[in-house]
Amino acid sequence: MLKDMLNNVRKNVPLIHNITNYVTVNDCANILLACGGSPIMSDDIGEVEEITSICGGLNINIGTLNQRTIPSMLAAGKKANELGHSVVLDPVGAGASALRTNTALKLLEEVKFTVVRGNISEIKTLALGSGSTKGVDADVADSVTEENLDQAVAFAKDFSKKIGAVIAITGAIDIVADSEKAYCIRNGHADMSKITGTGCQLSAMTAAYVTANPNHVLEATASAVCAMGLCGEKAKARMTELDGNSSYRNYIIDAICNLTPDELERGAKYEVR
Amino acid sequence: MLKDMLNNVRKNVPLIHNITNYVTVNDCANILLACGGSPIMSDDIGEVEEITSICGGLNINIGTLNQRTIPSMLAAGKKANELGHSVVLDPVGAGASALRTNTALKLLEEVKFTVVRGNISEIKTLALGSGSTKGVDADVADSVTEENLDQAVAFAKDFSKKIGAVIAITGAIDIVADSEKAYCIRNGHADMSKITGTGCQLSAMTAAYVTANPNHVLEATASAVCAMGLCGEKAKARMTELDGNSSYRNYIIDAICNLTPDELERGAKYEVR
Amino acid sequence: MLKDMLNNVRKNVPLIHNITNYVTVNDCANILLACGGSPIMSDDIGEVEEITSICGGLNINIGTLNQRTIPSMLAAGKKANELGHSVVLDPVGAGASALRTNTALKLLEEVKFTVVRGNISEIKTLALGSGSTKGVDADVADSVTEENLDQAVAFAKDFSKKIGAVIAITGAIDIVADSEKAYCIRNGHADMSKITGTGCQLSAMTAAYVTANPNHVLEATASAVCAMGLCGEKAKARMTELDGNSSYRNYIIDAICNLTPDELERGAKYEVR
Repeated sequence: MLKDMLNNVRKNVPLIHNITNYVTVNDCANILLACGGSPIMSDDIGEVEEITSICGGLNINIGTLNQRTIPSMLAAGKKANELGHSVVLDPVGAGASALRTNTALKLLEEVKFTVVRGNISEIKTLALGSGSTKGVDADVADSVTEENLDQAVAFAKDFSKKIGAVIAITGAIDIVADSEKAYCIRNGHADMSKITGTGCQLSAMTAAYVTANPNHVLEATASAVCAMGLCGEKAKARMTELDGNSSYRNYIIDAICNLTPDELERGAKYEVR
Repeated sequence: MLKDMLNNVRKNVPLIHNITNYVTVNDCANILLACGGSPIMSDDIGEVEEITSICGGLNINIGTLNQRTIPSMLAAGKKANELGHSVVLDPVGAGASALRTNTALKLLEEVKFTVVRGNISEIKTLALGSGSTKGVDADVADSVTEENLDQAVAFAKDFSKKIGAVIAITGAIDIVADSEKAYCIRNGHADMSKITGTGCQLSAMTAAYVTANPNHVLEATASAVCAMGLCGEKAKARMTELDGNSSYRNYIIDAICNLTPDELERGAKYEVR
Repeated sequence: MLKDMLNNVRKNVPLIHNITNYVTVNDCANILLACGGSPIMSDDIGEVEEITSICGGLNINIGTLNQRTIPSMLAAGKKANELGHSVVLDPVGAGASALRTNTALKLLEEVKFTVVRGNISEIKTLALGSGSTKGVDADVADSVTEENLDQAVAFAKDFSKKIGAVIAITGAIDIVADSEKAYCIRNGHADMSKITGTGCQLSAMTAAYVTANPNHVLEATASAVCAMGLCGEKAKARMTELDGNSSYRNYIIDAICNLTPDELERGAKYEVR
């Protein structure tokens, strides 16, 4: 199943519009090309709707957001909804400032997302803040462990049900959930957190996967998360003693570039809860 | 001849002012250093004319353009014209949005460019849209092939004549033309399109080549295009089975860094039509 | 002593707020992670004070500054001062345009910096322009050599006394001085200047070092400068004949990632004047 998701990315070459931060934007573009998609970056209000229209999917990442780009995110998101395109939200730093939290919440209110991907604290911030009833139980710990996994899965499913998007919570254990089913993924390596932007890259790649597999959003998202983790493992195995986080970054993107659907199928480590 | 062009870059160390997109800007800076030039990036209207004045050449790239940077592009371009500096235009995404198309056309109207470099569809967009008479025959296909090469060469020469700039159309076969003479270049590797920004990098490097060779703009541009393609080949030959597009990006810049004038002369594959 | 500085970075994992240029921002983020710190990039006036508040230190770099980000630099700097955080200034291109010079001077007037790091011409620009009395003797040459080293050291000490910040002047020989004591550092390799952003990276890393060692600002800054130079040497030793400036960039960050406190202590080449 996972391998079909990647096959479809390679076959359809989804064109993804990215409104994203200037820190990791180059890596996002290269990983989109590596996985089989194609990137366009554009954030001016004068063109974002038009750019979104020629693309298959949209990836909104709020890192280094500013007053100029926030209206562009909203406009592009609404246009993508109008056209039935996939839309991914990466709420980078939600909870770190009121501007980021409020922007992420406003985006959730005004745009229907296909997938929301973040770390547990970013997703908790969104869950606690969104909606008038605060109905989601966001009383989960700040990292997902074997001990609190069931609770985190329940939280992800609840939040997915509430906002109607697949929720991807990434960390030591990754959770990819819709309202009924959750993939718990144990690929990856701790040193991936020593590289800037592995999360941003995953969000961009997820946009390509769901755009190429619009009828299998949960599986496509799980596949992208498994692919990133698996390539983190493969890249780690390639490292020599002189290599550090900069080479690791290159090796991960290289591994995504060389990943075959069969390798993904065999290497993915997940269970469904 | 080609080798003299590179020798002059290394000897003169041209300082290039870049107003460029935030996706590939780091690669543009590193390739400028690699080829023997020196980069400055600056896009605020409050300083672009002054920065252009201390530089030898200007590279305007409209990727991720915005309302703030468009007036900066125009102001810097006019100042560069006033000073007799070389100016390169990379019309990234012209045709993809009205903002990009109109900005590129406005730049062509108000600034005299030394070189315009893009892919065939970007250059066609400019040729169709520029001028009141639409006199340029832009009825060429969307990719340059052996079959339509003569037609594409004629198109490039016509457009060069119309706007008075050397035209560089890059793709599987590259065309570098002024109104009378065209270099058809067959260096490069198809996988270069799997890296973000090889076009942007080439435009930045072209600015260094023409700035260091102001009396040989056509040959300097052809040399830069040959150098990029040749280094794409050399970098490809260096790749191991674990390498992918991220390492390829590094290897191309490395190859530009190590390219000798003699290697360029020997490795360039071109004919004149 | 130097090794304790690095040990404290690794132990405290200082979170550094960066308002920096979009050319080298990714490398700044990766080198902060490599050395043991953690980066946040944010430049919108609506959140910079809040972001600075959750961080331990602030790094202000004026490359690609614009009208939108200048007020953010001032606001974040003042907030950091209020909170007693370390603040580093990298006056990229001061002297190249009035906007850059005036912005750097305004920052020096309104914000108390812990460290100012630049090349000799940037620091001279600041010294000549700051204050009403022009009391600092900035009559030093445009590069620091063995011949003019004593004069340059005296200049650095005077400027440090005047503005109350540690001054780091980097070049072939680096000087790190407070008003009384100067480290003259002879680590590094000339080819580091063939990479964009080694200076920006050093400033970001310096912010991590001084934030983790608030009571030893001079030694912490000297340690960061030694670490960068030493890793420039180690990375150079690793290069093969096919490697160029792009791989060199990766190898330097890798070396920072793998640098042990003992290696730093042993490899640092400095004298105190």
